[in-house]
Amino acid sequence: MKNYLSITDIPDLDIAIQEALEMKEAPYAFAKAGTQKTIGLLFFNSSLRTRLSTEKAAKNLGMEVMTLNVNSDSWQLEFEDGTVMDASKAEHIKEAAQVLSQYCNILAVRAFPTLENKAQDEAEVVFTAFTQYATVPIVNLESSTAHPLQGFTDAITLFELTEQCRKEGRKPKVVLTWAPHPRALPHAVPNSFVKTMQRLDVDFTITNPEGYDLNPEIAKDASIIHNQEEALKDADVVYVKNWSSYVSYGTVIPQEGNWMVTAKKLEVTKQAKVMHCLPVRRNVVIADNVLDSEASAVIQQAGNRTWAAQWVLHKILKNG
Amino acid sequence: MKNYLSITDIPDLDIAIQEALEMKEAPYAFAKAGTQKTIGLLFFNSSLRTRLSTEKAAKNLGMEVMTLNVNSDSWQLEFEDGTVMDASKAEHIKEAAQVLSQYCNILAVRAFPTLENKAQDEAEVVFTAFTQYATVPIVNLESSTAHPLQGFTDAITLFELTEQCRKEGRKPKVVLTWAPHPRALPHAVPNSFVKTMQRLDVDFTITNPEGYDLNPEIAKDASIIHNQEEALKDADVVYVKNWSSYVSYGTVIPQEGNWMVTAKKLEVTKQAKVMHCLPVRRNVVIADNVLDSEASAVIQQAGNRTWAAQWVLHKILKNG
Amino acid sequence: MKNYLSITDIPDLDIAIQEALEMKEAPYAFAKAGTQKTIGLLFFNSSLRTRLSTEKAAKNLGMEVMTLNVNSDSWQLEFEDGTVMDASKAEHIKEAAQVLSQYCNILAVRAFPTLENKAQDEAEVVFTAFTQYATVPIVNLESSTAHPLQGFTDAITLFELTEQCRKEGRKPKVVLTWAPHPRALPHAVPNSFVKTMQRLDVDFTITNPEGYDLNPEIAKDASIIHNQEEALKDADVVYVKNWSSYVSYGTVIPQEGNWMVTAKKLEVTKQAKVMHCLPVRRNVVIADNVLDSEASAVIQQAGNRTWAAQWVLHKILKNG
Repeated sequence: MKNYLSITDIPDLDIAIQEALEMKEAPYAFAKAGTQKTIGLLFFNSSLRTRLSTEKAAKNLGMEVMTLNVNSDSWQLEFEDGTVMDASKAEHIKEAAQVLSQYCNILAVRAFPTLENKAQDEAEVVFTAFTQYATVPIVNLESSTAHPLQGFTDAITLFELTEQCRKEGRKPKVVLTWAPHPRALPHAVPNSFVKTMQRLDVDFTITNPEGYDLNPEIAKDASIIHNQEEALKDADVVYVKNWSSYVSYGTVIPQEGNWMVTAKKLEVTKQAKVMHCLPVRRNVVIADNVLDSEASAVIQQAGNRTWAAQWVLHKILKNG
Repeated sequence: MKNYLSITDIPDLDIAIQEALEMKEAPYAFAKAGTQKTIGLLFFNSSLRTRLSTEKAAKNLGMEVMTLNVNSDSWQLEFEDGTVMDASKAEHIKEAAQVLSQYCNILAVRAFPTLENKAQDEAEVVFTAFTQYATVPIVNLESSTAHPLQGFTDAITLFELTEQCRKEGRKPKVVLTWAPHPRALPHAVPNSFVKTMQRLDVDFTITNPEGYDLNPEIAKDASIIHNQEEALKDADVVYVKNWSSYVSYGTVIPQEGNWMVTAKKLEVTKQAKVMHCLPVRRNVVIADNVLDSEASAVIQQAGNRTWAAQWVLHKILKNG
Repeated sequence: MKNYLSITDIPDLDIAIQEALEMKEAPYAFAKAGTQKTIGLLFFNSSLRTRLSTEKAAKNLGMEVMTLNVNSDSWQLEFEDGTVMDASKAEHIKEAAQVLSQYCNILAVRAFPTLENKAQDEAEVVFTAFTQYATVPIVNLESSTAHPLQGFTDAITLFELTEQCRKEGRKPKVVLTWAPHPRALPHAVPNSFVKTMQRLDVDFTITNPEGYDLNPEIAKDASIIHNQEEALKDADVVYVKNWSSYVSYGTVIPQEGNWMVTAKKLEVTKQAKVMHCLPVRRNVVIADNVLDSEASAVIQQAGNRTWAAQWVLHKILKNG
């Protein structure tokens, strides 16, 4: 594996899930794979799980970790080509990416979207520049439109949660449901979840209010239902996530009904397990009576972030 | 040892002091005790000594260290139960503590008090939540009402400073004196110092202006004298520290006289050694002529932070 | 080597260059030199290259690294002697430096000038205090008036770039040219570059607009030409850097002509290689058509930061 920018960079997802689960059983099986290798973790935005699970994963592999909060520790970066840099940005990504590549063997980057300029966000300005100018592999720690380490984590967790379905010899029904949130959030997580589900043998449904359909190029032929109750029926796994409108790009538009996921709503499911990437706003996105119940798989899911990252870094180290 | 939340978590303080002093002599005697273990250092507030001495201690034991400045690196945490999280706080401690417990083998946390809401501060909202929801040991890096790593450090330092008393076969006289400060400061350090002194064989006196008596439940039967000169008489060790009023909770109330500790004031002592947890405001809390003299033990004291932390982490690792 | 505060702390620069280049070939040749030693990296200001290359260098030597963003992680420091500390600064450098010396075997510090008070900047208040009060070696990560790790890096890079001159048996012509910048910048980098050139067997010229002459005590007998085109003639290496006025201290004064370095201007050189310490503002300081051409050596130069730092730390560890 050269870069890890999308869930599609994993050639065989089923094999990857198995290998990641082996790492979960034996975290230090490859404790020397990263000897004398350094990963640079570059944050343009806040992070808890991604920051610590990736750092942990790298150290489990014996790597050195250097973390940079780009905007506060370092210089503001310019990404546009040909600019006269006479304003606030002190360094161009062309230099930064090449320089960082000399100090690090892998660069992992988090950079959220503007949610104001759809074209710019979809162009993945930061990641395009890093992959173009860096001379080492790039790992996506959440970009404008994708969060593939979360996507892979979700695949691992889903496998763990659907043992019963496999025993019964049937496809699990997985429902991605939109839920409310006071702020406008990116599409990275749902996008990567959708792309991940398209690669697994599941019965997949998306439910969201009118006006909240995801990018049709990503959702493709996924079944989208605007009635949450109908969508949840017989679900084995319910993945909850807010996102801002894609059509009315990056805005919170009024929607009908209450989309918060509650214990009551889950009654129509097959005692579904509930996933969420975290952080989750309790009693806004998901009710306490779900998060504090046996139905919640969110902690297990967050724990799997380490094994997803460790599998990815290991694959990159092996090929690198 | 499960958690380290209070000086009283150390079962036998005298033995602990001796073991910590052995670590000071041989810092790397347990260099493998923490192999493949990770400590998470979580800071809600500023820190110099605590941050670096705990990091150093962990590394001396062979642990991996992951540091998180919670508010700037990550998400604002909600600690209240049952809240509708529709305001600025993005993540609940219930999730955060459980998630962090999967990435770290020990969580060490610094969270200062509000100094506005006494009940909330005394409830130790942050630490109560962490100990309730985390599934790994918690270490207190200074909470609203306690700074037990400082307390243990002070016990170690006091032992070093009172060799002469032991030779002479007499109890050392230890005086905790309040001193002025331009800002309202927490009670954590004096509280932990008082609790530590109550566990040692010392003649202990507290002196502070009227209106500055510490929480009577902590000070208990300690002798409190409102005349600083009288209190300092024949002291072997003088521990200087400012704190805000406990009765007029969290405020700086006017006081009579000048309570700054000076060389002149120390003349009535038995050439007392002067301790302070640092940072100290020179010529406000303690005069230059004390801090720059032989009387000052503040550097030695700060150095002992490493061994206090290392002893605590080692005990937790051994039981863990 | 005790401290590394100036390029003149390197006893024999030619030997040092060779040894650093050997480290570049074999980065892990001294991977145990720093075992059980800790470096503290203290940043009062932003940093990308210095932060990461020094961290990398220390880890290549097997050291532990503790990084502190002084102002945001810790307490504001007071550097003045005898002050009554009743304002915003919570800790005096006297304590901080002594305390840090107990946690770290080497302290490396970055502290930029005010550019407002020339006397204070030239007194190197921060570094003077650190070297006075710390009890461990101090490394300059850029002070008010010097950036000696950059200076040594530049010596290494210059050696690499002038192989042809050595073959032809002639001194390389090196030109330090001022270039425009929207903000007032320090003199640390040009100062250290000038001092470095004075120790090498090169034909050295400085070119800058009237009013921008560097401190004459540093520039000494260096040839200063106010006509950029004339200065660049036959240059083998062109070092580009902005600095604010030294006479009209710390200000951006109007200058005639366009001093930005372009491909066109380099035509009069001997196909000169172009150096810059980075970060560089494209199309203000240096044009894209230089930075994106074969002439640019800025990435190679930034890469050499690691070997300069590693050589310095290794020398300090050996003597320490």
